[in-house]
Amino acid sequence: MGEFELIECYFRAAAQGLVSQRGDVILGIGDDAALLDMPADRQLVAALDTLVEGRHFPADCAPASIGHRALAVNLSDLAAMGADPAWCLLALTLPRAEPSFLQPFSDGLLALARRYGVALVGGDTTGGPLSVSVQALGFVPPGTALRRDAGRAGDLLYVSGTPGDAAAGLALLQAAAAAGPADAQQQYLLQRFLYPEPRIELGRALRGLASACIDVSDGLVADAGKLAVASGCGAAIDAAQLPLSDALIHAVGTEQAVLHALTGGDDYELCFTVPAARRAELEARLTNVKCRVTCIGLLEKQSGLRVTRNGAAIHCDTRGYDHFRTG
Amino acid sequence: MGEFELIECYFRAAAQGLVSQRGDVILGIGDDAALLDMPADRQLVAALDTLVEGRHFPADCAPASIGHRALAVNLSDLAAMGADPAWCLLALTLPRAEPSFLQPFSDGLLALARRYGVALVGGDTTGGPLSVSVQALGFVPPGTALRRDAGRAGDLLYVSGTPGDAAAGLALLQAAAAAGPADAQQQYLLQRFLYPEPRIELGRALRGLASACIDVSDGLVADAGKLAVASGCGAAIDAAQLPLSDALIHAVGTEQAVLHALTGGDDYELCFTVPAARRAELEARLTNVKCRVTCIGLLEKQSGLRVTRNGAAIHCDTRGYDHFRTG
Repeated sequence: MGEFELIECYFRAAAQGLVSQRGDVILGIGDDAALLDMPADRQLVAALDTLVEGRHFPADCAPASIGHRALAVNLSDLAAMGADPAWCLLALTLPRAEPSFLQPFSDGLLALARRYGVALVGGDTTGGPLSVSVQALGFVPPGTALRRDAGRAGDLLYVSGTPGDAAAGLALLQAAAAAGPADAQQQYLLQRFLYPEPRIELGRALRGLASACIDVSDGLVADAGKLAVASGCGAAIDAAQLPLSDALIHAVGTEQAVLHALTGGDDYELCFTVPAARRAELEARLTNVKCRVTCIGLLEKQSGLRVTRNGAAIHCDTRGYDHFRTG
Repeated sequence: MGEFELIECYFRAAAQGLVSQRGDVILGIGDDAALLDMPADRQLVAALDTLVEGRHFPADCAPASIGHRALAVNLSDLAAMGADPAWCLLALTLPRAEPSFLQPFSDGLLALARRYGVALVGGDTTGGPLSVSVQALGFVPPGTALRRDAGRAGDLLYVSGTPGDAAAGLALLQAAAAAGPADAQQQYLLQRFLYPEPRIELGRALRGLASACIDVSDGLVADAGKLAVASGCGAAIDAAQLPLSDALIHAVGTEQAVLHALTGGDDYELCFTVPAARRAELEARLTNVKCRVTCIGLLEKQSGLRVTRNGAAIHCDTRGYDHFRTG
């Protein structure tokens, strides 16, 4: 048995508990493909995202974080659709089959999978430069999926959590070799980059209520801009309303914190719109969701994205993170 | 708009015809995830396989072949389950966004997708060393999926097509720089490596008939061995029965042709078992399938895989292709 088959056996054993728990996995890892029982009267939601070493995470990143993030970015896509996550498949390309990588990598991925009841049901391991593709599958009741393109001028624009933390965390990670030990606030920012939490619960709560939704992976301004374009609108963001974490302000000061929140990538928060008349309904629904949301602006008829702060325009790069430009 | 977003727009436009044709794609490329209408009373079949440059294809491989094979290897997994293919997602990692690569790559992938009515519904493009992951999704009527683990001692063992051609084709490709122009038989072998045909039609015809099935990607002996182990059996293969193509015999001689057929990778044929009492039923079903199948042996109670030719044992490497060992 070759090393890569051993890896598949390893993942198969590690994933067995979740497979048994779900009860809808007829065949998981070990056959040519996974065989899955779909629940009746549900639409399927499918996401496939890749993390590449040196592009999406630093070369010396903790393997547990790589495993966590590879699944988290895909669950975040499912969250942005309002989906209930169900299954995932893993395509892992790595230079060498080293237990010192595989054990924490799989621990990181499967700990997150367990938290959301997601079973690892298949995939592929091969040799090559380190990269990880995860396919996440989930469901929504027919007609309830959140989408990018159904916002309307006048809808209120919200963001979850405290955007900008992950960008500051990545900067700390990249400077870590030169710096001393991280304090509690720096640790918090590092965790926000290394272990983003997909907003599954929030996405579910927004079904049938949010008019449009997108996950914030390329930066708030870039992704809010995509939502606005898809909805045939423009948008106005009041930067004074941005929910900034104390840790972020402490680490970089308020001016830079605002820029991080507007343009930093890797937050995996949700940016969504709600008709103004349904604001109270949103607040009522969110009482049971452990995730803060903040109204930061609104959609407008006029195309383009306008960011102001205390009345003054802020010019920021709205193009978002481009792997080709910055690589 | 960054280069990688342009690529997504490009694939979105190129895939639109297939999306419209299927009618079950609510949201395809362009939202956070794909939103898909499952047919009633079907189980979902999901495969995810990756091709890495320098491991699964040579560095100077034609982009059209890379696109074709990235989808073909996943459709082959679906074929081995007897599934009807429906949708695919593409995770493409490439060093630079060059139209001279992207156009033939997408032509190759989408031409194959079109042939099987598969809609490209999502994915991800990023910068990095060239690798391609495709996720293929399909359906089977409940309880009819082919699997590896349900063969029984006494069942007849079959293989489709003419295995070994792809290994000879790869050898020709690797020697191409030194060799002159390829003749018709060499062209045939090259095509067998560069443009393998997933045995979708055959897999469908075997539903409810084959006791076990696997696709041959790592070599016939290795994959038949996996089927036998999963089914709790051993297997005997009579190498004199191997269906060898004239082109293969012409290119490498009969002795080497037999070894290619037994151990060469990348064939993407199906290897399957049928209860001996149902042989006539198999033959009747296959009259409408444009793919030859050949009985090459049978499953046995005694574990292990035995290959003989005219009564003499053949010893061959049964471990299959290992990306770590041979890379």
